[in-house]
Amino acid sequence: MQNQQWQLKTRPQGLIGEEHFERVVSDVPGLEDGGVLVKNLYLSFDPTQRGWVNDTESYMPPVAIGEVMRAGTVGQVVSSKNERFKVGDLVQGLGGWQEYFISDQGTGLSSVPEGVTPQEALGIFGTTGLTAYFGLLDLSDPKPGDTVLISGAAGATGSVAGQIAKLKGARVIGIAGGPEKCRWLTETAGFDAAIDYKNESVPDGIARLCPNRINVFFDNVGGGILEAALDHLAMNARVILCGGISGYNETEPMPGPKNIMNLVITRSRMEGFIVIDYMNRVGEFLTEMLPWYRSGQIVHLEDVQEGFDEIPNTLQRLFSGKNLGKQLLKLAEPES
Amino acid sequence: MQNQQWQLKTRPQGLIGEEHFERVVSDVPGLEDGGVLVKNLYLSFDPTQRGWVNDTESYMPPVAIGEVMRAGTVGQVVSSKNERFKVGDLVQGLGGWQEYFISDQGTGLSSVPEGVTPQEALGIFGTTGLTAYFGLLDLSDPKPGDTVLISGAAGATGSVAGQIAKLKGARVIGIAGGPEKCRWLTETAGFDAAIDYKNESVPDGIARLCPNRINVFFDNVGGGILEAALDHLAMNARVILCGGISGYNETEPMPGPKNIMNLVITRSRMEGFIVIDYMNRVGEFLTEMLPWYRSGQIVHLEDVQEGFDEIPNTLQRLFSGKNLGKQLLKLAEPES
Repeated sequence: MQNQQWQLKTRPQGLIGEEHFERVVSDVPGLEDGGVLVKNLYLSFDPTQRGWVNDTESYMPPVAIGEVMRAGTVGQVVSSKNERFKVGDLVQGLGGWQEYFISDQGTGLSSVPEGVTPQEALGIFGTTGLTAYFGLLDLSDPKPGDTVLISGAAGATGSVAGQIAKLKGARVIGIAGGPEKCRWLTETAGFDAAIDYKNESVPDGIARLCPNRINVFFDNVGGGILEAALDHLAMNARVILCGGISGYNETEPMPGPKNIMNLVITRSRMEGFIVIDYMNRVGEFLTEMLPWYRSGQIVHLEDVQEGFDEIPNTLQRLFSGKNLGKQLLKLAEPES
Repeated sequence: MQNQQWQLKTRPQGLIGEEHFERVVSDVPGLEDGGVLVKNLYLSFDPTQRGWVNDTESYMPPVAIGEVMRAGTVGQVVSSKNERFKVGDLVQGLGGWQEYFISDQGTGLSSVPEGVTPQEALGIFGTTGLTAYFGLLDLSDPKPGDTVLISGAAGATGSVAGQIAKLKGARVIGIAGGPEKCRWLTETAGFDAAIDYKNESVPDGIARLCPNRINVFFDNVGGGILEAALDHLAMNARVILCGGISGYNETEPMPGPKNIMNLVITRSRMEGFIVIDYMNRVGEFLTEMLPWYRSGQIVHLEDVQEGFDEIPNTLQRLFSGKNLGKQLLKLAEPES
């Protein structure tokens, strides 16, 4: 049996694209004792993948040149010498940009819970939902009447974080690019208002829509949007640094916010987190998220591309702002 | 009786100096019921005063043009129509740059505790000590074995914060300007090591002296020093924003740190505070600080200038880095 992979060929300087990857075909090796052969069905695309291909120290080692590109995946077990996994099981892990992969001893694999689709496992019930839930609730405590501002609000994580803040009683303002995304935020996701950064000055929008200033800022973007938010902090505000997508494809480090001293004047806190620290709290998360999502109190949009050829282009969609909601790519449907 | 004042004449752009103040002589008005007339003995000089003369929103209203310059003071009651204060009492408050002032109803005045000198009341037992104590211990929790980095370490607040961290068992590294200050830090104040930013690259010094990275950074300086510290954060580090003196006299906002995303990778927190929020916890502070200081476990250096004429120049000493320890100015000795 043959396997196709997208391997990292060169490290991008600037925007990442297909030219940084090489398509490689190889034979799938035989299974050793304890091994599990998985066929990838869905791939997850996340802004943090851009950082994984930089040759710099981070929260995970860089993807090596010649290594298959790392990605979150849901797949189906096609062959198993491991008693924890049987053929047909849906499993999730970091299967990467390839059709098949082998997990020695089942390491890094976990079963997709009964009744959860592959798309949900990678999105609302996966790292996306976990990131939104623990980022918002562990690093802040949004209360009724608080104003919560979300950047990258029409992205997978931002849209969920905003809806959780609404469920906690806060007034929620989103920042997103373009009228379609902003309309989705207010009409479907229940945000109180949205700032279209492509058609409005973000500082003006914040001033207009946050007259009592910002109690919580959940930031996926960084750069000028972070600086604008720091100019409108309420007392004892919480700035949650989830990501900084505006800088991920820059060849030079972007200038930092000039107004960090606003954290002093307003006695505010800016804090970063990484979702992998919360993997042992998935149960706690699902206890709240499953009923919220199943009852329709939280909506989650998926943007599903298709086909092995389209993998590198699909990553690029995140950085050009093309995706509305969680970016996925389907390689195959599960077989029953 | 006549009073001399230094009033704010124009708002400084850049470095503050005598040219921004006007010396004004006026008669001291008579006391109304409840009033207290105080003769200023010692003035406190603090970097935050630079912010008070900017015409921008902050944690206190700006000093108005034509108003006496705001400053912390210790003085002696020379006349009183208030039963809480009697002639001869030592009192502290925001008496400003003047020889005499009247507090209506005794508002904003508090008695200097028995056995505490005016210098101590403005320094180690005043806002300096409070800032160091609550900034360090309320915003972080330095533990034995932790590495604590302090910028502006030979200043009043930094030197005390570092010594408190030592008492909590941490390894403490200070950043200060010049060999004299660095020697004082290691030989007298008990710091484990010091980085002389005038004679060594701060990033190199941090890398050399913090091989296990920084668990707590207590920052009085901002700018390039904050950026260098953010490049060496340990996991779950705490960045305490006490001040940013490097930017206080800049005419344009300084660029922010380019590496804020390090807060994400290391799951770290950067937080600001203002000492006035802790005024109701002075008792708690003195319970620890009095024995530390009286037993010599904490040392506190005072840099005392003299004379009404020298007031504006003395403020400038803070920004040229001339002071070693707490900057004070003596106007008169208390009369017994």
